[in-house]
Order: sequence, then structure tokens, then C-alpha cells
Amino acid sequence: MHCLVVYDISDDGRRTKVADVCLDYGLDRIQYSAFLGDLAPTHQEELMLKLERVLGRKTGNIQLFPLCARDWQGRRVIEKGG
Amino acid sequence: MHCLVVYDISDDGRRTKVADVCLDYGLDRIQYSAFLGDLAPTHQEELMLKLERVLGRKTGNIQLFPLCARDWQGRRVIEKGG
Repeated sequence: MHCLVVYDISDDGRRTKVADVCLDYGLDRIQYSAFLGDLAPTHQEELMLKLERVLGRKTGNIQLFPLCARDWQGRRVIEKGG
Repeated sequence: MHCLVVYDISDDGRRTKVADVCLDYGLDRIQYSAFLGDLAPTHQEELMLKLERVLGRKTGNIQLFPLCARDWQGRRVIEKGG
């Protein structure tokens, strides 16, 4: 199942670690602080537990959104320049 | 219908304008570059057209994800400090 992880983390080190964990789980970076990929619900749960540990007591907000096939198809992207 | 808008925009002015348009559409800021809210599919379409115009030729990536009731219920949030 597709899922999207987005985060706001002010501490550079923790932010990098969160990104590394997302990559370890096979997610693709679609934006600086957004990762997308295919994860079974149990792995989504496991990922969020790991991310919570990585964040520790630092200030931050991490959100995961599961995306069913229909929602996935409804995704819209604007991509310019770069 | 719930929808999530996330973006990566390097130009400060355009990024602020994109945020303003999201607020105009009644979306709530859940992270620095992520907005969430309730929008009918036609309004989601209209919003993305406006955001594309606001971004213009500047470098950026804007993505919208519709979220059905079930996906919405599956949302997970980690919130620390702040």
C-alpha cells in the first residue's frame, strides 16, 4: 500500500536521520521533507515507531498518510524547473 | 473530501503566495510546507491551477493528494515539543 510521510523537524541531525530511516524503508524522496513509497500497514506502524525514537525529545512533527489505489490515482503534481 | 497539499519551493515570495492561496481555500497549515483541508474534487482542481499560475516559471514541486475517509482515518501523527 502506498503511503506518504511528511515532516517538519528543526534539528538538522534528527531531520537527516529521519530521512535515512525513510530511505531504509524503501521510500522515495519526492520533496525535501516528503517521502513516498509502498509499505504494508504493519511496516507503516513499525516505521512510525522508529521515527518517533529517532526524533526523541526534539521538536518536530511527522505525519504518515496511507493512500489507497484510488487516492493514489488522484494525486496531482506540479513540477517546474530545477 | 480531505486533501493534502505539500510543496517544495525555493523562492521565498512564491512560497509565501502558495501558502496564502492554500489558506484562501480554507486549508489548515499542518507543517511549514503542508496544508490539509476539505475540498470538493472540482475545487482541488481549481486550487492546483491557481498554484501552478502562482509558481509561474520558478523552480518548485507542488503535490496534492486526495484522502478518502478510510485513508484519512489511517493518518498517524507524531508531535513533539515546540
